[in-house]
Amino acid sequence: MASTSGPEIERLIQLLARLPGLGPRSARRAALHLIKKREQLLGPLADAIRVANERVVVCSTCGNVDTSDPCTLCRDTRRDDAVLVLVEDVADLWALERAQVINGRYHVLGGTLSALDGVGPKDLNLDRLVARVAEGGVQEVILALNATVDGQTTAHYVTDLLSHLPVKVSRLAHGVPVGGELDYLDEGTLAAAFRQRTAL
Amino acid sequence: MASTSGPEIERLIQLLARLPGLGPRSARRAALHLIKKREQLLGPLADAIRVANERVVVCSTCGNVDTSDPCTLCRDTRRDDAVLVLVEDVADLWALERAQVINGRYHVLGGTLSALDGVGPKDLNLDRLVARVAEGGVQEVILALNATVDGQTTAHYVTDLLSHLPVKVSRLAHGVPVGGELDYLDEGTLAAAFRQRTAL
Repeated sequence: MASTSGPEIERLIQLLARLPGLGPRSARRAALHLIKKREQLLGPLADAIRVANERVVVCSTCGNVDTSDPCTLCRDTRRDDAVLVLVEDVADLWALERAQVINGRYHVLGGTLSALDGVGPKDLNLDRLVARVAEGGVQEVILALNATVDGQTTAHYVTDLLSHLPVKVSRLAHGVPVGGELDYLDEGTLAAAFRQRTAL
Repeated sequence: MASTSGPEIERLIQLLARLPGLGPRSARRAALHLIKKREQLLGPLADAIRVANERVVVCSTCGNVDTSDPCTLCRDTRRDDAVLVLVEDVADLWALERAQVINGRYHVLGGTLSALDGVGPKDLNLDRLVARVAEGGVQEVILALNATVDGQTTAHYVTDLLSHLPVKVSRLAHGVPVGGELDYLDEGTLAAAFRQRTAL
């Protein structure tokens, strides 16, 4: 490929191929698309990436990414300080915000405990979580962690960590996804859905 | 979303979502991945896109994209000037180069004739093709166009266009793809494969 179109285009393809969702082939298509749409897309994207590179910071309060610290969510005075939603990743925070299900504050752990991947408590944003809860004002910490083994291990660890503080700790319900068909669900989900059935 | 993470990140997501192969959701994942891997990915990608934006040009001879004009392929003295491969798009040129099936020169049409999309002969890189062939030296023009209706219409048009010039015009063979199963092929492909069967 280097001999086809020069090292500059090859470099662009290689970097695009490292984005999640793009492989070598689709990165090539994306690079070509960028080059063809230079005015509408390549130039604006160059600016957007430069601005992001210069200005994006990690919020020192909650761990969200934004162009200001504290981030937009932490500065928003209309949010309920009493509710703190613990998420694994910024992507989860964004997903919850899109769903508009909760109007509290967030705290991004930056991962889950994982013996396999060698992630211990020191690698996560846990000290800051305990400090935020200890400061007072938070009445409930909602553990919005993934329903995976690592996510649940982390949930137990965080529950222990917060047990000496005067705060209620809860986790998201397990059950049948809305629109889901029973036939396609695993036994664990079905068992949880039965255990936690609600009266009508 | 604008209230979650600032307009700068939102702008980056919107631009990434316009790349082929990325939708709104995967663009968000890609943006977050870029921000997390700032040193390894965001900075280098910013540079690569800026360089591409500043330096990439369309080759005035063949229509390839490169950082020099004439492009690397047109300047390569080890290539066979007698063979000119006509392709629809730069992506096709790249695909043929990856397969390393032909060591000739290329000519990128920039599309195919299409009554539906309103693409006529004037919209394609045809004048330059005729000029290149008329200059002499080219003995065979291989029409490596897609086996679509528009591709075949274009192939016929180009064949007519070159008929007064002393050049052989050929097109790629139709048949069973290597590794393909007959059961999954359409009637048109099967019929072509039978018509153009080769003696063993």
